[in-house]
Amino acid sequence: MSNSSSQRTRIVIIGAGFGGLQAAQSLSGADAEVLLIDRHAHHTFIPLLYQVATAQVEPTQVVYPVRTLLRGSPNVRFLMSEVHRVDFHSQIIETDHSLVSYDYLLLATGGKTTFQGVAGAARYGLPLRSIDDAIAIRNHIITRLEQATGEGNFQERQRLLTFTIVGGGATGVELAGALLEWMRGAMGRDYPELRHLPARIILLQSGDQLLPDLPKKLGKYTAKKLRRLGVEVYLQTKVERVSETGIMLSEGRFIEAGTVIWTAGQGATYPQSREAVATASKGKVCVNSSLQLLEYPNVYAIGDVAYILQNRKPLIGVAPEALQAGVQVAKNLRRQLQGKSPKPFRYFNKGRLAIIGCYTGVGYIAGVAFTGVVAWLMWLGVHFVYLPGFRNRLLLLLSWVQGYLFADRPVRLILPATQPMTKGELSISLASEQPDSGNDSV
Amino acid sequence: MSNSSSQRTRIVIIGAGFGGLQAAQSLSGADAEVLLIDRHAHHTFIPLLYQVATAQVEPTQVVYPVRTLLRGSPNVRFLMSEVHRVDFHSQIIETDHSLVSYDYLLLATGGKTTFQGVAGAARYGLPLRSIDDAIAIRNHIITRLEQATGEGNFQERQRLLTFTIVGGGATGVELAGALLEWMRGAMGRDYPELRHLPARIILLQSGDQLLPDLPKKLGKYTAKKLRRLGVEVYLQTKVERVSETGIMLSEGRFIEAGTVIWTAGQGATYPQSREAVATASKGKVCVNSSLQLLEYPNVYAIGDVAYILQNRKPLIGVAPEALQAGVQVAKNLRRQLQGKSPKPFRYFNKGRLAIIGCYTGVGYIAGVAFTGVVAWLMWLGVHFVYLPGFRNRLLLLLSWVQGYLFADRPVRLILPATQPMTKGELSISLASEQPDSGNDSV
Repeated sequence: MSNSSSQRTRIVIIGAGFGGLQAAQSLSGADAEVLLIDRHAHHTFIPLLYQVATAQVEPTQVVYPVRTLLRGSPNVRFLMSEVHRVDFHSQIIETDHSLVSYDYLLLATGGKTTFQGVAGAARYGLPLRSIDDAIAIRNHIITRLEQATGEGNFQERQRLLTFTIVGGGATGVELAGALLEWMRGAMGRDYPELRHLPARIILLQSGDQLLPDLPKKLGKYTAKKLRRLGVEVYLQTKVERVSETGIMLSEGRFIEAGTVIWTAGQGATYPQSREAVATASKGKVCVNSSLQLLEYPNVYAIGDVAYILQNRKPLIGVAPEALQAGVQVAKNLRRQLQGKSPKPFRYFNKGRLAIIGCYTGVGYIAGVAFTGVVAWLMWLGVHFVYLPGFRNRLLLLLSWVQGYLFADRPVRLILPATQPMTKGELSISLASEQPDSGNDSV
Repeated sequence: MSNSSSQRTRIVIIGAGFGGLQAAQSLSGADAEVLLIDRHAHHTFIPLLYQVATAQVEPTQVVYPVRTLLRGSPNVRFLMSEVHRVDFHSQIIETDHSLVSYDYLLLATGGKTTFQGVAGAARYGLPLRSIDDAIAIRNHIITRLEQATGEGNFQERQRLLTFTIVGGGATGVELAGALLEWMRGAMGRDYPELRHLPARIILLQSGDQLLPDLPKKLGKYTAKKLRRLGVEVYLQTKVERVSETGIMLSEGRFIEAGTVIWTAGQGATYPQSREAVATASKGKVCVNSSLQLLEYPNVYAIGDVAYILQNRKPLIGVAPEALQAGVQVAKNLRRQLQGKSPKPFRYFNKGRLAIIGCYTGVGYIAGVAFTGVVAWLMWLGVHFVYLPGFRNRLLLLLSWVQGYLFADRPVRLILPATQPMTKGELSISLASEQPDSGNDSV
């Protein structure tokens, strides 16, 4: 990109998540050259990742090629590259390929899972933030089921069939419900050997409420529902340590588990920068009311990397916030291009929805609380509408019909996809695979 | 499995490819306990792998969970495990989990890519035998396109956009055609930067004919068609060496290429065995007319691991051969269970089809040669019908409609899926990923 010398104003957006992509699309046709940079070639629809992890939908249904989403925007280009460092003073970004200069910059680099210093968590806990994470969890779960069928020892088999989820937020709740559906439904048909040995699904929440961003009564309802379905829900339970064989609670009890999924703890992904900037809790970048960095008015930050206050409370980090912020940044950039001053960002909360599973969910919209099948249907509807791409939506619908009506799991697959950036880089791992390379039979 | 002690006769099948799976399904309801072992939990529909490699269909559309395919067969069980070694004398198989004893054994362990001792081929050449291979090729191609957009040097960019395919059999021909469709169609829309720099697709065949298993005139037709479409076809061209930057031909010419796909060279995947058995060319196991090992009448071998003669010529190793052999083995085993002697295998050749791409193909059925759109449609029809699973078929149809009618590539995704057998085993690679673990934005 560095070689394309254009005299037009250049806006660089780092991150093709909800915020960055929305901003890029909203800048379509603006009198500026827009460059969107992401280290992946695809946009990930994070709210549906848990359905990939539970073999409900295909990975390719929740990710979408960024370039295709930008087909209609000739002034917006895409660069797949890792951003190593930003130099706010000389307005230059270092990527793997080159140096990219900018006039205006948007940091939309998102968040990452933090293991809060819990011993063994980073090593044995499975995070769920990216499509790779989701596929890894799916592979892991199915591998455990396969191992359990081959396992003679009763106790070890029970351990292999014990799935622990750390974190009682939306992701944790949704995972617990979906896992339960899976184990009750398709699993029994595919693993007759395991039918009389039900899987244990355990949900651990450090606080005293599930879905802490929602009203207390909805958290209570969710816990009650999950328990009735058969999920073991533990509130006010902290994790001391995660090991290869299970998870140690701070109260001293050890849970033998073959799988630990880690949905707790969220940090910002802030690229290295030459100059220090003000950051708040979780390493989020401080921005003013119009989403500009306090130090650099030509640099914006939104989404999970930004500390955005609304009526003195920080945003909690959900997709709608990032989407609306992306639109506002695009508006403000257009204003700055016209020499006008940017306007403050006002987040309009359309409400919150969470799916519990087994045809129930919870929702809180305009001060009204919904529960049960109504909220469940609303959740499906909203995520169906927001998923990019007609094709993905169609396939999603098929998967849901099969998953919910026929209680089946379409994607029970362990797909060990390799990712050679170039074959050369892969040579080591390939070499070690040579003995049976290419043999896909046994 | 070793712990389940049953007095019934036990038949073990190694390999859930076309032959092994067919045999297992044909033994449904037989008076024997059947155990199917494969190191993957899924069956791979190999003929469609090239469409996964060219981003036409989703990986999950051409693989299918073995357990689901066996749902209707209570006497057939599945074990996901690696087979390390077979002891024909004491009739025991060593897997990672346990020792499995058998009364009758079917070796259906398939084939593997062999690089025929060409220097650098194993390291830099991408094989296409398994779903992992296919995903790796797709990731590789898209990565090359992304790298090309960021590349300033003209010559290097042309190299990144040069795709060389070694081997002019069906796989090579189909890949060349599909790659061309992709680069002419969707690629231009997604990579405007590359529109004026067409990709080079080169097909290298050592012999003097493409599709050597088909009549000469069809090989000629295929070469003519591919050339007219823009593929550079070189016949009687051998590869001397593959390097990081390209491929050296034995005639001394060096082709600068960013991608080398290796479809030439096929060997058998024969598990280690304590006792030596007679093998023929490519390490294939010799069997008698009723598909039994010459040395062990209770052991069968079919598919790419077996050397099966029909009218004094060995079978060439295509799916229909394996499927029919699987049926015959099941018949012979049922006969043996009844104390009768097995019957000879007769392969009925229904004909051959190969797809060239851009709505043309070739076929040779009952001595009649087909070309053009007729053969193309027949190919689609046959593979549509044989693909297991209604859902897969439906999704395949959607992908084909989008791919062929709208000349689009639905699955332009780099999905670096990790495959932790258990999280522990993955710890090393995870550790190295820690810095940006879970961050799927940049």
